[in-house]
Amino acid sequence: MSKELSGYRGEALEFLQRAGVNVEDLVRVTKDGKPYEGILIPRSEYGDDKHIVIKLRTGYNLGIRLSPTTKIQKVGEKLIFTKPPQPKTKLGLPKVAIVSTGGTIASRVDYRTGGVTPALSASDLYAVVPELSDIAVIKTEILFSIFSEDMTPKHWSVLAKAIAAHITRGVAGVVVAHGTDTMGYTAAALSFALQDLPVPVVLVGAQRSSDRPSSDAALNLIGAVTAAANAPFAEVVLAMHKTPSDESVFLHRGTKVRKCHTSRRDAFKSVNAQPIAEVKGQKVIPLTEDYRRRDPSRKLIVKPDFEEKVALLKFHPGFDPKLVEWLLVSGYKGIILEGTGLGHVSDQCFSALKHAQDLGVFVGMTSQCLWGRVNLNVYDTGRDLLARGVVPLGDMLPETALVKLMWALGQTKDYDKLKKIMGTNIAYEISPRTLSLGDV
Amino acid sequence: MSKELSGYRGEALEFLQRAGVNVEDLVRVTKDGKPYEGILIPRSEYGDDKHIVIKLRTGYNLGIRLSPTTKIQKVGEKLIFTKPPQPKTKLGLPKVAIVSTGGTIASRVDYRTGGVTPALSASDLYAVVPELSDIAVIKTEILFSIFSEDMTPKHWSVLAKAIAAHITRGVAGVVVAHGTDTMGYTAAALSFALQDLPVPVVLVGAQRSSDRPSSDAALNLIGAVTAAANAPFAEVVLAMHKTPSDESVFLHRGTKVRKCHTSRRDAFKSVNAQPIAEVKGQKVIPLTEDYRRRDPSRKLIVKPDFEEKVALLKFHPGFDPKLVEWLLVSGYKGIILEGTGLGHVSDQCFSALKHAQDLGVFVGMTSQCLWGRVNLNVYDTGRDLLARGVVPLGDMLPETALVKLMWALGQTKDYDKLKKIMGTNIAYEISPRTLSLGDV
Repeated sequence: MSKELSGYRGEALEFLQRAGVNVEDLVRVTKDGKPYEGILIPRSEYGDDKHIVIKLRTGYNLGIRLSPTTKIQKVGEKLIFTKPPQPKTKLGLPKVAIVSTGGTIASRVDYRTGGVTPALSASDLYAVVPELSDIAVIKTEILFSIFSEDMTPKHWSVLAKAIAAHITRGVAGVVVAHGTDTMGYTAAALSFALQDLPVPVVLVGAQRSSDRPSSDAALNLIGAVTAAANAPFAEVVLAMHKTPSDESVFLHRGTKVRKCHTSRRDAFKSVNAQPIAEVKGQKVIPLTEDYRRRDPSRKLIVKPDFEEKVALLKFHPGFDPKLVEWLLVSGYKGIILEGTGLGHVSDQCFSALKHAQDLGVFVGMTSQCLWGRVNLNVYDTGRDLLARGVVPLGDMLPETALVKLMWALGQTKDYDKLKKIMGTNIAYEISPRTLSLGDV
Repeated sequence: MSKELSGYRGEALEFLQRAGVNVEDLVRVTKDGKPYEGILIPRSEYGDDKHIVIKLRTGYNLGIRLSPTTKIQKVGEKLIFTKPPQPKTKLGLPKVAIVSTGGTIASRVDYRTGGVTPALSASDLYAVVPELSDIAVIKTEILFSIFSEDMTPKHWSVLAKAIAAHITRGVAGVVVAHGTDTMGYTAAALSFALQDLPVPVVLVGAQRSSDRPSSDAALNLIGAVTAAANAPFAEVVLAMHKTPSDESVFLHRGTKVRKCHTSRRDAFKSVNAQPIAEVKGQKVIPLTEDYRRRDPSRKLIVKPDFEEKVALLKFHPGFDPKLVEWLLVSGYKGIILEGTGLGHVSDQCFSALKHAQDLGVFVGMTSQCLWGRVNLNVYDTGRDLLARGVVPLGDMLPETALVKLMWALGQTKDYDKLKKIMGTNIAYEISPRTLSLGDV
């Protein structure tokens, strides 16, 4: 394969070779009679062999699917567009800090080297998403540069403190650029660690990098910065596409959101809750009246400690109770179970759970159904679990329950206090019970 | 509390006590001017204190929410309705076997004792759901009487053989009554254990018992028996409500279905697939053309063995790779990971996974997103996992992947054969890859 056509293969590679064009060439592509002009850029990821990608003069990348009518022609060689003029910082706009932790949204592929580089200086961001300069004056900080699957509770602590520092310096809101894999967990962690927030904290990611055709990065970033600058609430939320198309951004509560698709742009869903708001254009439209109001004079309380010796176990047929025993001898301080249905595990687990109870290890019950609410009072199994000290956690997501237990154990090791914290609604993680018995 | 008003409490208890009525009394209730007559029955579950429940002459139970206008009056004492006349077995109808394993659908509350009893003799079923006698001639077998959270792979083996025996005797289809908690797992297990099915096998459950107001048991049973008797396909499917209302029943493929709500009647969803059919009234309407046709002459192959030393681990921030090491020293034969996003775990897990690879222990990757498809070729983490022998499992549900690996290990312990089985689509568990890059 030609080194100059890095990333291309199959049909697309042959098409480009036949036309004698290389990556970085200025090309004109015509398809269905319409011309597109730009620089041919490398495929940055494992993609198909049917698309070529060009960077338009506007800075946007366009994927073009090859068809029998598609033609390509070189109109210039090794031409690099000069950077667009830097937008002037507009006076009077709200100040927003963007803290980057890594992930697809914080990176772009250098189309000369093919390597992935962080793109989060303010001027780089403005270059990629020029609309941002109309919304806020942006300061950026690159805190980590890691895949989000490598985030640990220790990173949450550092991140919480970094956000707090920006808030103390008086920004209108903070945006956290994050890989999508564990963004839901981090959103929950910040929801507990940052209490009495005066301004919003908005996590944002992208399912497709800004160098990929149909990237969702720009709309998500605009939505996140808009929310940080202008939202009427002061909570930890997560900004991602509402639908697969580039229409609007949902703001999900940090404790109620999870990634529910591996690749769709609208992968994140609020579970057992509605999104708190929607960002359309540069308008933040609240979808509920029940939220903590923005109040810059409120005093932020930071509780950044998390205990790592907490496990999340998903129960299944054939589940081995010795796994629970192993956690107990290994000094685990807490266990969240993902039970079946209303919150059940097999009777074979009872003795291990009794053992946890005797040792004073907190065991909380959630449901692998994800939607709905655990209830240990309906069936015998549930009552047997209650008798062994298992604590039902309402409609909390299993992931949120795990994070909350790590955080609660960071505040206290006293079992009774722990139980009280876990049962108290702190950041909308437990919805009020609504009865839905609609008979006569 | 009066023993005669077992299960009632609060407002409902006071209401009944004021009126001097007891459980088993024949009562007339008027609400909003409308009269309802029936036997007052005990609340069978932990319910609210706002409803009373009566059994109507038709055999159906009705929950009545108390309002200021509700009145109740005793019109007879300790009266037990005589059983409705037994329906005659209609000649010429297809034969259907109902194998009961336990669970809400297979039980009803005895309204004299308050105890739960199985209700699965054919005549009991006809009494509860008289429509069944118009659809099929039913034979029943009570195989187990357990909560579904107590089902193990050993139960799956026994169940597969029991179903096979009915099929060999020439029934038009088999219905399996099952608790909903692990019904999805059992559906997957039967999908692999019963190969070359000549007739359909239909799992069915209920979210609310037939003695509860707004039970879903009757419609689900009618849907399941209709499908077993008449569906044009011969696959393992699961019959449950399509929507919360009593409209129609979806038939989900056994490998693609999971319980996605703790309590809703439409709790079961097909994930990464459409339901195979819908049952409306007594019509089975296929929703796809791609299915294995019913063919009573086809020879069933039973492969009922499952290996229990298989674990399902859900990855999360703070996940302890020592858990993987513990499985390896404990002689586990296979591990299914529920990774983040496209199928990732942290780099801290790499060495434990390398260890599994060296020991020849199969490790398969699924996604905790549930929807979508793993892809280990997009990011470095994925490629690092491939290098350590982790096998991506397409769009298979984590639960189905676990069951399939237990089953595959029941067929062979040879790593290469195992890898081949896990990557081969056997019962629609892996959907064909569909590209969805829609740009220009």
